[in-house]
Amino acid sequence: MVFPHRHLLGINGLTELDIAFLLDKADQAVKLSRQREKKTSTLRGLTQINLFFEASTRTQASFELAGKRLGADVMNMSVGNSSVKKGETLIDTAMTLNAMHPDILIVRHASAGACALLAQKVGCSVVNAGDGAHEHPTQALLDALTIRREKGRIAGLTVAICGDVLHSRVARSNIILLSALGARIRVVAPSTLLPAGIERMGVEVFHDMTEGLRDADVVMMLRLQRERMSGSFVPSVREYFRYFGLDAQKLNAAKPDALVMHPGPMNRGVEIASEIADGPQSVIEEQVEMGVAVRMAVMETLLLSDNQEPAK
Amino acid sequence: MVFPHRHLLGINGLTELDIAFLLDKADQAVKLSRQREKKTSTLRGLTQINLFFEASTRTQASFELAGKRLGADVMNMSVGNSSVKKGETLIDTAMTLNAMHPDILIVRHASAGACALLAQKVGCSVVNAGDGAHEHPTQALLDALTIRREKGRIAGLTVAICGDVLHSRVARSNIILLSALGARIRVVAPSTLLPAGIERMGVEVFHDMTEGLRDADVVMMLRLQRERMSGSFVPSVREYFRYFGLDAQKLNAAKPDALVMHPGPMNRGVEIASEIADGPQSVIEEQVEMGVAVRMAVMETLLLSDNQEPAK
Amino acid sequence: MVFPHRHLLGINGLTELDIAFLLDKADQAVKLSRQREKKTSTLRGLTQINLFFEASTRTQASFELAGKRLGADVMNMSVGNSSVKKGETLIDTAMTLNAMHPDILIVRHASAGACALLAQKVGCSVVNAGDGAHEHPTQALLDALTIRREKGRIAGLTVAICGDVLHSRVARSNIILLSALGARIRVVAPSTLLPAGIERMGVEVFHDMTEGLRDADVVMMLRLQRERMSGSFVPSVREYFRYFGLDAQKLNAAKPDALVMHPGPMNRGVEIASEIADGPQSVIEEQVEMGVAVRMAVMETLLLSDNQEPAK
Repeated sequence: MVFPHRHLLGINGLTELDIAFLLDKADQAVKLSRQREKKTSTLRGLTQINLFFEASTRTQASFELAGKRLGADVMNMSVGNSSVKKGETLIDTAMTLNAMHPDILIVRHASAGACALLAQKVGCSVVNAGDGAHEHPTQALLDALTIRREKGRIAGLTVAICGDVLHSRVARSNIILLSALGARIRVVAPSTLLPAGIERMGVEVFHDMTEGLRDADVVMMLRLQRERMSGSFVPSVREYFRYFGLDAQKLNAAKPDALVMHPGPMNRGVEIASEIADGPQSVIEEQVEMGVAVRMAVMETLLLSDNQEPAK
Repeated sequence: MVFPHRHLLGINGLTELDIAFLLDKADQAVKLSRQREKKTSTLRGLTQINLFFEASTRTQASFELAGKRLGADVMNMSVGNSSVKKGETLIDTAMTLNAMHPDILIVRHASAGACALLAQKVGCSVVNAGDGAHEHPTQALLDALTIRREKGRIAGLTVAICGDVLHSRVARSNIILLSALGARIRVVAPSTLLPAGIERMGVEVFHDMTEGLRDADVVMMLRLQRERMSGSFVPSVREYFRYFGLDAQKLNAAKPDALVMHPGPMNRGVEIASEIADGPQSVIEEQVEMGVAVRMAVMETLLLSDNQEPAK
Repeated sequence: MVFPHRHLLGINGLTELDIAFLLDKADQAVKLSRQREKKTSTLRGLTQINLFFEASTRTQASFELAGKRLGADVMNMSVGNSSVKKGETLIDTAMTLNAMHPDILIVRHASAGACALLAQKVGCSVVNAGDGAHEHPTQALLDALTIRREKGRIAGLTVAICGDVLHSRVARSNIILLSALGARIRVVAPSTLLPAGIERMGVEVFHDMTEGLRDADVVMMLRLQRERMSGSFVPSVREYFRYFGLDAQKLNAAKPDALVMHPGPMNRGVEIASEIADGPQSVIEEQVEMGVAVRMAVMETLLLSDNQEPAK
């Protein structure tokens, strides 16, 4: 079997071959999305439900467009309109939707592990679109695709992941994926924004941007998630930008052709200076474009007819 | 004419033949929904608008998927985003949408009779998706379909409808429909949760679950709608569950193969114990599946070309 | 080139020929919308994003149906669910969506000029669906289409635009468009609801309804936008209706076959009496119908293959 998984719950559990398969397929989807007519009938007659317990502009939009361009019937369920408010449990909501025979559920939830839990219950494919601080696999795939297209490879590159690593599922998924493909990963953050034991993921830890960015090929900035912080650990924006915001001076430490990345939405002037976000090294918009392509690749792969029997 | 109605405003007014026609058609839609490719082009080029003045996860989703699988263009209008907030009246909203040439309006509203009022004003078919404590006809149809598929018939069965009958349009529609098809209906509830004069609908009234469930073929639990209650009549959850929540002991009074039903969303531990909701007699998920099929059948029937001239 | 514009940001900048081209095309779309099968595949495979920073029932619905009937993939992005809440800027939101390769963005925003700003940044067509008190070009086009279909022409007609002109982008766009097509425009309002220097737009100013409506061919009422007013300038509803609300007596001053128009949603009993809104001279519902047709015409024109190179 080409891709032996029914769900995409995380990067953890994928082999290097699995990842390469998805990235190659996404490269083809990029071509389609750049044409005037961007629609196929690959998933015609299939039902995709976007089940978002947390709001998200770009991720939901990206999955919605990906599904529509593949010809699927796409339905959005956001928590605001849902009966979760009436006290229904996560599982009951999922089982209700499952009984409507969707072919794929795209799930975002505030709790780590929510998607894996759902995947055990429902009869269709599940894609994790972000679960708490755990994983956000399609983000890591789109980041990898962006790097591979820009640099021609991932193995051997030095990638500095900078900022609020503690609250970041993006960081977690990227560390796993880029390590698996042979990149050297550094994390650069104040110790209060690093999870305990991060070294065990095989990364180098820096607390100083200039040192952490030295000769890096890729500088991946993270969003400062102030809304997830509490009490005395919320850094002041001005202090944070001074020490950990990416500006021209700090970027100088990286290689001259280093890529600047950000998963969005950006806090300009907090974790990244506007001139850098809009500068020549930035590939932030390309990341968004790759997002649609990666999601098309993931959904098409999971729903391939010869992949319909669960491997497990 | 096979089905002589342009709208579906309630079960009241349908003949036994009308109901059988819809259930037979729904049986065919079940088959379609279980295939990989679940889409037809029956309603291609037609416009369905879901006009929901009250939020509802499952009902709106069910109608949306039903419409999309029939090939219609489906548009959701939920009150949260609507100009009702700007003071526009129900009728103005409906007339505005009507001027956009929809072929069918699916309407949920907090007031009994709202859908019938709209149906008099607009030029398209109207389906009542729940109006106040009045009717919810597609719910009753999906319940009947579930029972008929499980038991092979409806005539002669004993159906116990239990709980908050007072606030339940589901109960009302079910009493009318299941009576019309020859079932014996009991309602089981504290007197404070029964509408005055319920006996005139031809049902037997019980205030004790064990008595009311004795030898029943179907136990249909209702959601306790605490949000619609006020003041001293709001029962405590613990007391309610003790006397009227469905648990293994009370279910024992019914026939051993009695079906357990619930329209959802469930309050687990309030009107139904989790072990019963997830137990072998529960057909709660099948109800949801039948919901999509019934809605496909209803919309296809109302929009059949040879049914386009109003019968009235 | 038949229609030399890539965007529709306002009526300002369109020639009489441009306007006639769109109205003629809209006439054809009316025919399509009145058929049972209302769908074409003109825009199949193209992506339309409705980016609404202000909520709007009718405008968003109208654009959504227009796009779906043209066969486009339509995605709604409303501000409530968006990352604007997380502090992302207007431009970042637009650039993110732009990176997903939409073919057309429909934008509503509270600030005048927001759409023009976006149009400079993105790679696709932009339609202004209302920007602050600036312009609302598709509303003016649908009003013109309604008048032209009812009266057979626009040149030479006397059009009285009445009420809250100060806060009205509808008034602004209509004044520009109807003047360009040769109508005589009057504005009728209390001086507190008129922008300074309105006379320079070539309109006659009246502060009395009976004088302003004298022998008018078209009476176009505006919504009183109390939500945009502050402090001492909010008129009392009763006073307002007495002096500026359209009732039978005031309408008597206009020609006997004068059209009564309103862009909706109406405040019945504030700017217009119910009996007039629902009376024989009212074309308010026809305006809504023309809205879908005009939006189909605009989108199809902007996305015509031979119009894909920006004229600028």
